[in-house]
Amino acid sequence: MIPIVCVVGASDSGKTTFLEKLIPELRRRGYRVGTVKHDAHSFEMDREGKDTWRHRKAGAQTIAISSPSRVAAICEIEGEMSLEELAGRFFWREDILLTEGYKRSRFPKIEVFRSAIESKPICGPEDNLLAIVTDDEVSSEVVSFGFADVNKVADFIEERFLEGRKKHQILVQLDGKRLPMNDFVRDIVVAGIRGMLSSLRGWKDPKKIDIQIRLEEN
Amino acid sequence: MIPIVCVVGASDSGKTTFLEKLIPELRRRGYRVGTVKHDAHSFEMDREGKDTWRHRKAGAQTIAISSPSRVAAICEIEGEMSLEELAGRFFWREDILLTEGYKRSRFPKIEVFRSAIESKPICGPEDNLLAIVTDDEVSSEVVSFGFADVNKVADFIEERFLEGRKKHQILVQLDGKRLPMNDFVRDIVVAGIRGMLSSLRGWKDPKKIDIQIRLEEN
Repeated sequence: MIPIVCVVGASDSGKTTFLEKLIPELRRRGYRVGTVKHDAHSFEMDREGKDTWRHRKAGAQTIAISSPSRVAAICEIEGEMSLEELAGRFFWREDILLTEGYKRSRFPKIEVFRSAIESKPICGPEDNLLAIVTDDEVSSEVVSFGFADVNKVADFIEERFLEGRKKHQILVQLDGKRLPMNDFVRDIVVAGIRGMLSSLRGWKDPKKIDIQIRLEEN
Repeated sequence: MIPIVCVVGASDSGKTTFLEKLIPELRRRGYRVGTVKHDAHSFEMDREGKDTWRHRKAGAQTIAISSPSRVAAICEIEGEMSLEELAGRFFWREDILLTEGYKRSRFPKIEVFRSAIESKPICGPEDNLLAIVTDDEVSSEVVSFGFADVNKVADFIEERFLEGRKKHQILVQLDGKRLPMNDFVRDIVVAGIRGMLSSLRGWKDPKKIDIQIRLEEN
């Protein structure tokens, strides 16, 4: 699975503004970047009266709109998707996934903290907080960066998450839940699948393999 | 892969209106329905100034917004995604995918035809046209339905595409391209992967297995 880093912080602390600086810096370094925004409400994405909106109102559970330069999909779901599942479903080409929010997730976090907004950071090392980006001197157990230090934050993310990604990676989901695997099992499963498929006509040394299986009851 | 049926027709022939009747009828019969709309232009899905819009403008290549009842994703791509790839990426829970448009695809088609708009249907049997929905008597080599016959069209789709879907299904994509497989190979690959994974802790007789592998050069 691609690395996930959560950019957290109180409301109006400047998470989006910080992401607007961090994303282009990571892009400049050659990485493909994805983002996830958490929304507590049932947001509207398409516009009333549009064809896609009419499909959805008629009961379509997933609606996509596809053009040569962009594709968008809206899925009606029952129960929130985990970050792992989102990463697996939608971020198949990216090198890193940055979230805005998700302070309660188990993933590593960078907190944007402004002393004018909150008296202290909302996350601590027990929340897997790795770094704070702040306008203030904070006595923190984690690394701290200034708002102007986007380069240093990008260095930090690159060192921690983007170097040494030279091993084969695999994400297996059973009914949407991630199947955990250690490195040894991962190597066996990757080699097994690769071996099986590589004997088929049509195999051409791909970089990515995606497999979707739907099993029927006997 | 799930069955794909393209609803085609001239502009203003009533494709969306027909889909607005067909989708709820298929839903009523217990099927999960997805739709794809083709758009020749670079449509706007999110709104200027929204956080997701700001992420995209900053250079994020895929942006998702996630809530408990809905998830949406926008991906910037280079070159249009095929219907197969769209089906594999976004329609993992649906039983059938209906498209609006895609008259040039290889998939089976139902044409919505109004004699007031065009003198003759835009597709023929050589385009994999299966049926026509029309207000007119057309001398056609394919089945023809009236606009009020939504039930009959749903019967037709159900018989042709939704019954007998009792075999294991597998979709393998290498770098986004579908790897073709005959039934024999499909059974071997499904049994092989299932056998390998079922010996792992965490296996619990799933209905769906999704695997994503990223291979690194040696």
